[in-house]
Amino acid sequence: MKRIEQYASFGGRQEVWEHASKTLGVDMTLGVYLPPAALNGKACPVLYWLSGLTCTEQNVITKAGAQQYAAQHGIIFVCPDTSPRGEDVADDKAYDLGQGAGFYLNATQAPWAPHFRMEDYVVEELPSLIDQHFNTRGQQGISGHSMGGHGALTLALRHPGVYQSVSAFSPIVAPSQVPWGQKAFSAYLGDNREAWAEHDAVELIAHASEPLPILVDQGDADHFLEEQLKPELLEAACQRANHPLTLRMQPGYDHSYYFIASFIGDHFAHHAKAFAH
Amino acid sequence: MKRIEQYASFGGRQEVWEHASKTLGVDMTLGVYLPPAALNGKACPVLYWLSGLTCTEQNVITKAGAQQYAAQHGIIFVCPDTSPRGEDVADDKAYDLGQGAGFYLNATQAPWAPHFRMEDYVVEELPSLIDQHFNTRGQQGISGHSMGGHGALTLALRHPGVYQSVSAFSPIVAPSQVPWGQKAFSAYLGDNREAWAEHDAVELIAHASEPLPILVDQGDADHFLEEQLKPELLEAACQRANHPLTLRMQPGYDHSYYFIASFIGDHFAHHAKAFAH
Repeated sequence: MKRIEQYASFGGRQEVWEHASKTLGVDMTLGVYLPPAALNGKACPVLYWLSGLTCTEQNVITKAGAQQYAAQHGIIFVCPDTSPRGEDVADDKAYDLGQGAGFYLNATQAPWAPHFRMEDYVVEELPSLIDQHFNTRGQQGISGHSMGGHGALTLALRHPGVYQSVSAFSPIVAPSQVPWGQKAFSAYLGDNREAWAEHDAVELIAHASEPLPILVDQGDADHFLEEQLKPELLEAACQRANHPLTLRMQPGYDHSYYFIASFIGDHFAHHAKAFAH
Repeated sequence: MKRIEQYASFGGRQEVWEHASKTLGVDMTLGVYLPPAALNGKACPVLYWLSGLTCTEQNVITKAGAQQYAAQHGIIFVCPDTSPRGEDVADDKAYDLGQGAGFYLNATQAPWAPHFRMEDYVVEELPSLIDQHFNTRGQQGISGHSMGGHGALTLALRHPGVYQSVSAFSPIVAPSQVPWGQKAFSAYLGDNREAWAEHDAVELIAHASEPLPILVDQGDADHFLEEQLKPELLEAACQRANHPLTLRMQPGYDHSYYFIASFIGDHFAHHAKAFAH
């Protein structure tokens, strides 16, 4: 694991690391923000951030304004890339499939299967790496945006006990029912709809084994709201399953990092509250 | 004046506008953040932000995290581009001359003279445009980064009474004495050193006609510190002239927007305090 960028930020340090991922079979980059508490030797909880389609770690670390809240709450903020990348990695010309569009699952279909294993990477390899290199304390939360919101919700629901807290911005809550998800799931998982249900937050919520409270922010001026995001499906599923959900429809907000920056402070507070228990 | 982008942000609205500049003879873009107070019809003060070499309005509006403080203090935040641009505008292959490097002065030399009139643009045309299109209240401050820090300091010093407050991040305080400034001034102003002195904060401070307090933040890990920035020259000039300066050397910080984001809240507070008088 090699540090390739570092910047002083809000009394802490924003870093970018590169490492050879055994899970993905390629070199990966990730953002790590170390709050002042971590630099002063205190063991800190970790918040994982999963980014959306086309993003790398750079979008969130440069545009979300997350560092000030991570500093304030003493949280290490870890931001992986959205897929394996490289000349030897399968890709597609479209922005919503292949490199930059890993969908936080382990692909079972060719040509994606060998490298596209983002679920194992995020849930297993990455925390192991972070715990080994930084002073963590066994508490972790997960959040993300759009495709990464889908990732945060599904990984938290699929791995009970692993995350103490979960939240999402503009998540794809029902990928099996919308074009982005149907395209990606067909490619990565094949035509078996039962396999799709295992990576669909609305499907998973019915069988959730722990009532981890979910915070979701969604802009009501988001161009993807009606076709791709459909937060009302998550709301209905949570009501049916009696699963705690705070869904905030934010008037006038869109799908951009201006939206995320405006409310990410509330998400840090949500995760910090869970870590304090 | 035509709005080309808009995003809800911290209860207000980040906009990008385009207009045909009479001063520069080209179309210019600028960022305008309207705080919630402005959207609610309240007349607001304006803070102008001058960006550094190579930047457009996009760098500061996406990376500085300024909107939350503008929202909190009820300040309209206006961010022009760093030079005229276009196929008909003179340019140079280097990043530090020509398009993206206007140095906030009116060029007197060919081939720059016809379009490179950033001083008149920032001090006259832009405020006139802003006052015409938005609900301002006749108070304005100026700040900026690096080349834009030079711009903020020199424009405030050259136009007493126009700005109620001034601050800068990592400013080029003595362009006549450093490579960036010497190259730009030779090109834009010719070899006449007396003309250079009129655009050099360290020279101007000796003759300042009003004691406008200056806030400067400077990272001590800034790679440009020793060769290009030299804040000690500003400190000495202010001491000689008995001009109020708060120079904060920030340990470990560099020249990036991570640095700006960490302290821009203090700069908004500095300007808001001046507007409150």
